[in-house]
Amino acid sequence: MTTIIDGKALAKKINAQTQELVAQLREKQNIIPGIAVVIAGDDAASLIYTRNKHNKAIKLGINSILKKFPANVSQDELLTEIEKLNNDDTIDAILVQQPLPPQLDPEVITNAIVPAKDVDGLNPLNLGKLFANQHGNYPVACTPRGIMRMLAEYNIDLQGKNAVIVGRSILVGKPLLALLNNANATVTMAGRNTRDLSALTKTADILIVATGVPHLIKATDVKPGAVVIDVGINRLSDGKLTGDVDFEAVKAKAQAITPVPGGVGPMTIATLMEQTVDLAQWRHHG
Amino acid sequence: MTTIIDGKALAKKINAQTQELVAQLREKQNIIPGIAVVIAGDDAASLIYTRNKHNKAIKLGINSILKKFPANVSQDELLTEIEKLNNDDTIDAILVQQPLPPQLDPEVITNAIVPAKDVDGLNPLNLGKLFANQHGNYPVACTPRGIMRMLAEYNIDLQGKNAVIVGRSILVGKPLLALLNNANATVTMAGRNTRDLSALTKTADILIVATGVPHLIKATDVKPGAVVIDVGINRLSDGKLTGDVDFEAVKAKAQAITPVPGGVGPMTIATLMEQTVDLAQWRHHG
Repeated sequence: MTTIIDGKALAKKINAQTQELVAQLREKQNIIPGIAVVIAGDDAASLIYTRNKHNKAIKLGINSILKKFPANVSQDELLTEIEKLNNDDTIDAILVQQPLPPQLDPEVITNAIVPAKDVDGLNPLNLGKLFANQHGNYPVACTPRGIMRMLAEYNIDLQGKNAVIVGRSILVGKPLLALLNNANATVTMAGRNTRDLSALTKTADILIVATGVPHLIKATDVKPGAVVIDVGINRLSDGKLTGDVDFEAVKAKAQAITPVPGGVGPMTIATLMEQTVDLAQWRHHG
Repeated sequence: MTTIIDGKALAKKINAQTQELVAQLREKQNIIPGIAVVIAGDDAASLIYTRNKHNKAIKLGINSILKKFPANVSQDELLTEIEKLNNDDTIDAILVQQPLPPQLDPEVITNAIVPAKDVDGLNPLNLGKLFANQHGNYPVACTPRGIMRMLAEYNIDLQGKNAVIVGRSILVGKPLLALLNNANATVTMAGRNTRDLSALTKTADILIVATGVPHLIKATDVKPGAVVIDVGINRLSDGKLTGDVDFEAVKAKAQAITPVPGGVGPMTIATLMEQTVDLAQWRHHG
């Protein structure tokens, strides 16, 4: 019997915990966690994502500000805004929605966010600490952190397991590589240069797919009994959402699998909220 | 016919280039690159390594200072020294020899070295930039950088190749993972938790071994035609040095292989010298 990993239910549980914690922080310590979501341009999907994040934050009692800039905003203008937010004592978390318009260098923008407010975990200082498996508190990219939380919730053992990540992005593949290494899995990260991807994915006890290619992974690409995590969110021409994994076919073969929608997606935003509160607590209590 | 990768000869060539560049910098720009090698304790191997580094630097015209501390040095005392070196305008590169005595926290020491002088590439800011494949100049751990240089010198193609790294250290395995990912190889990092290491190493087009276990890798663990890089330097009871790979047996099967001694070892120190000069140039010219 294949386990369908219910990201929606887990996200709901985490959101309820976050809401409760926010209420306590406000009441007992007079701390109100604050997030600033920055968006440049009119990309329809990005506008929806940022509005969802903003609304969810408000709903959980987090102070949220949405900063919209036109698509032609200059890099200097955006950097000035980030610097202001870095120094704003009511803001604990800064998120700049990607992708950015072409005149903006994502490295420069990312590196400008002060590490203590870097809720996306993209600042190289935070990424380097994660990669080095350093002790102490630092933010981690929300989608990978959410995936690790799902694996833990479903008691999926990682130590010594073969994990294969398909997709090498800075937001998903790379932080996940570090997290799975730190959990003592044997990790392989594949990308578009990988030859014979299918031979590789068939070695995976844990298979994580984040490519943006609908149904890239078929049943023949998966080892029987594998745990399959689908990070893809692809909109089909009929408006329906689907993942990077052929869910119906792979489900029959997997030990556990995440659906799309209702798997990784809701975990990302729940983790973002949770980490915003973490950043607030770390900033106030060190 | 197996290629024996001659790290000693390549190191000699790089050292000659470094010496020439140092002379030019001194003459034309009045820049004298400077390195500080810090050691705590009396570990015999570490004393030899640090002396070798110091002597090589002097020989190439680099200003080198060797700072020795007793094994019971306090963390505060070492941090005060690092802070002094961070602010010393004659010093471009700071290296703290590992392993450190147990009362010293290697993370705290590493994080204290200013990123611009972090010649070992261990500061999380530098490690994170490498992992993110950021543009611009930043130091990279010397052994991995030296290995990449050897692979380039011998025209070993990496794109789309399966690379397996055995050993997960912060000085070798992890930076190498990042470098090989950045070169578009499909990389797996294995450690002591890996099940069926031999099945994994046999998939490697490029096999890199850094475990400190003499002759861990036998001919049966290697794919015919693989490139084998042996980072191990193990002293046998008869005083001879040997690697983590059974050189004589594996040589018959590999396309190319590094010997021990004379392979990776000399490249590390040549790269350290080269990167000291890089740091001096970056610091003076941005």
